[in-house]
Amino acid sequence: MFVVPLIERKRDGGALTPEEWSALIAAYTAGRVPDYQMSALLMAVFLRGLERQELAALTDAMLASGQRLTFDGWTTPRVDKHSTGGVGDKVSLVLGPLVAACGVAVPMMSGRGLGHTGGTLDKLEAIPGFRTTLALAEAKAQVMRLGSVLIGQTPEIAPADRKLYALRDVTATVEAIPLIAASIMSKKLAEGLTGLVLDVKRGSGAFLPGLDPGLELARTMIALGEDRGCPTVALLTAMDRPLGRACGNALETEEAILALRGEGPEDLMEVTYALGVEMLLVAGVEKNAKKARKQLENTLGAGLAAQKFEQVIEAQGGNPKVLEDPSVLPQAHAGEVFMANRTGVVTRVEPRTIGRAIVAMGGGRQQVEDPVDPTVGFVITVKPGDKVLDGEPIASVFAKDAGGVKLGFEALERAIVIGDKLTERPLPLVSHRVTRGGVEDLTAPPPDRAPRAGRRGGTAS
Amino acid sequence: MFVVPLIERKRDGGALTPEEWSALIAAYTAGRVPDYQMSALLMAVFLRGLERQELAALTDAMLASGQRLTFDGWTTPRVDKHSTGGVGDKVSLVLGPLVAACGVAVPMMSGRGLGHTGGTLDKLEAIPGFRTTLALAEAKAQVMRLGSVLIGQTPEIAPADRKLYALRDVTATVEAIPLIAASIMSKKLAEGLTGLVLDVKRGSGAFLPGLDPGLELARTMIALGEDRGCPTVALLTAMDRPLGRACGNALETEEAILALRGEGPEDLMEVTYALGVEMLLVAGVEKNAKKARKQLENTLGAGLAAQKFEQVIEAQGGNPKVLEDPSVLPQAHAGEVFMANRTGVVTRVEPRTIGRAIVAMGGGRQQVEDPVDPTVGFVITVKPGDKVLDGEPIASVFAKDAGGVKLGFEALERAIVIGDKLTERPLPLVSHRVTRGGVEDLTAPPPDRAPRAGRRGGTAS
Repeated sequence: MFVVPLIERKRDGGALTPEEWSALIAAYTAGRVPDYQMSALLMAVFLRGLERQELAALTDAMLASGQRLTFDGWTTPRVDKHSTGGVGDKVSLVLGPLVAACGVAVPMMSGRGLGHTGGTLDKLEAIPGFRTTLALAEAKAQVMRLGSVLIGQTPEIAPADRKLYALRDVTATVEAIPLIAASIMSKKLAEGLTGLVLDVKRGSGAFLPGLDPGLELARTMIALGEDRGCPTVALLTAMDRPLGRACGNALETEEAILALRGEGPEDLMEVTYALGVEMLLVAGVEKNAKKARKQLENTLGAGLAAQKFEQVIEAQGGNPKVLEDPSVLPQAHAGEVFMANRTGVVTRVEPRTIGRAIVAMGGGRQQVEDPVDPTVGFVITVKPGDKVLDGEPIASVFAKDAGGVKLGFEALERAIVIGDKLTERPLPLVSHRVTRGGVEDLTAPPPDRAPRAGRRGGTAS
Repeated sequence: MFVVPLIERKRDGGALTPEEWSALIAAYTAGRVPDYQMSALLMAVFLRGLERQELAALTDAMLASGQRLTFDGWTTPRVDKHSTGGVGDKVSLVLGPLVAACGVAVPMMSGRGLGHTGGTLDKLEAIPGFRTTLALAEAKAQVMRLGSVLIGQTPEIAPADRKLYALRDVTATVEAIPLIAASIMSKKLAEGLTGLVLDVKRGSGAFLPGLDPGLELARTMIALGEDRGCPTVALLTAMDRPLGRACGNALETEEAILALRGEGPEDLMEVTYALGVEMLLVAGVEKNAKKARKQLENTLGAGLAAQKFEQVIEAQGGNPKVLEDPSVLPQAHAGEVFMANRTGVVTRVEPRTIGRAIVAMGGGRQQVEDPVDPTVGFVITVKPGDKVLDGEPIASVFAKDAGGVKLGFEALERAIVIGDKLTERPLPLVSHRVTRGGVEDLTAPPPDRAPRAGRRGGTAS
């Protein structure tokens, strides 16, 4: 196909027709359009944007490039959660089994670590024997049997996205809202869902740190989902500090197991429950948020979520003993405790610095083919706002050798800032709820508790 | 080398350092940077531009990627002319031998047809036996012996430009002023020149039709040349209609031979002399324009330019008889005369339509590897403003068969517009002269003939 006129048109701010997007993506997936033309077009899209109908056509073409999970006649609601990525974000490992234990099927397809962010697949693979590469038929059978599967994008799902994503990663065209939205939604819409909940991270550790780009991404993905018959809701959550205490693959898996046993850190549980509530609501198994929250807490408290995770691990070839004894996870060879170097208040725990250090220490990838050392990472026990004493232990470094420990210490010295007082208020853990209907500011006072009677405050619209 | 951060910076409107451009171009030329990264960067450059020092560094890096002609100790001035491309532009075939016959060496390296425009190499290769692929040493020896050589870009000259140019052609990143300027100047500066004259085309048949982009391109190239010790001058000339009467390779070569024999069409001669004057001035062999023009006319009138072309053809393996008998050029199998379909005034002769028709008829390339049929094309004997009578012959089509003639007729019907009166004034043949000092509007009345005394009009600055 003759691609140059299409690149020219996008370059000059015009739009491609749905038929052109469809033909282009099919030809690219089949290897009939070279990477160098697609990367020029992607850069033009990055700088010129996509019109709404172009984005829809691109997403549909990517979805159509592969197969889809189908559950014809199976009436169990199927809901997935997708996070835009952060540091310490092990929510999927807790939420998948938890929501499945509440009677909602969760066919969860996750990704690997990307840039400074961790990936659910890498965390799962820290469990000895755990297979994340199930065939589509196997995954479907497991969803119907257990209500939960935790896998990577199979080769059958949206191959156009695999190819485009790999190209974007090496051509500086990752952080474009329409391209992010099309990539995520083409995969999620292939899962045969009856609902989808999005965790859109904001703050310095997110790919799109600002509130407005985060809201735009949420709205864009929601429109794509809803227009295709998949009810979609998004929460904006904080990624100006790591989520939970553990950062690094095996360490995060261990923290997720603690959470499933009812011993998770508060911030991790808050985000997990908030997303879980939305999943139960969109699934239609609960009608209001309070009841949904109660069901999640009860299910977790009764050990049913941990039991579900155990079943999933066993089904996917992993060692299920990990639930009772997390020490079956691989352990770091070197470790050291990091102390506060002054008395004061923690003002920053910078997630990007932490995420980059994990990559540098071998716990993430610089290149796609790099192996990952699951053992390395950090446990950081302080949050912005916490008071600390000079010499008080505030973090631990786990590394493969003394050199790694040194890298880790240097990162902690930069990432954890201690001052006289909090200069910048940390972001609210869950700040906005976005639906097709609009944006709800969850931090605005509700009308009956507002300081003055009258019109409701906040940015709800 | 790690290219993604460089693409990111340019994408976001930042600048690369000279060292970064240098390392990047060297790595790309050596095959260590893949095309898909370079094409993303080129699109970012297209949409974000280059700062002055970036353009300088890019040009230097492209120049440094190959060898240069050197004439150490040889005191003969060496001047080349470069045209930005048009339809019917056979000036180089006349000007190279003519200026060489005036005692200025002209080491002329030309290109092939591109898009709707013709290329000097294709025209020269219409001459049976003519070789345009001389090695650099051979070309240098011929310049020193004859003062003239007419060749293509050798593999030794600016290989980075060859590679980048091929990539730009298939990624819709051709028409960017800094990329055009760097491409042209990296080749011209490798010719070991003491001066350079640029023919920047404007009008609908030019790659950059508008006056302002044309002036910007001229100024950009002049700055690059002058900063590198090569005095550079540009003329802006008309490409809102074909230059001369013949369009098509062998037909244009024949017209160039007629011009060398003193029988060229007026517009072709005007542009040729105007550029020749600048070449003699920049070479320093004449001090004022009037004398330079006189010398060119006398040299041509005495048959010395034709004789020089004959020597060059013989030296480069071509059949020198072509000067006396242009019928040794390949002849079209089919031909037909085209008549005016009404009485009126010719208002348009659209060069793009003519140029595209030549490509469609087999006289240009759709793909780089395509062979070119040198015989096909047009001779159009009318210009905008000419009065014509219904049924009067105004053009001839030359094609390889009846189908080609049909294509040609259809193109002429669209390209030649006859109306009641001229609705749009044709562009002045030579409208602006650009030097490092500024822009001179050659169509503004000179001060002593200005309607009122006082400050000089025009856009000179």
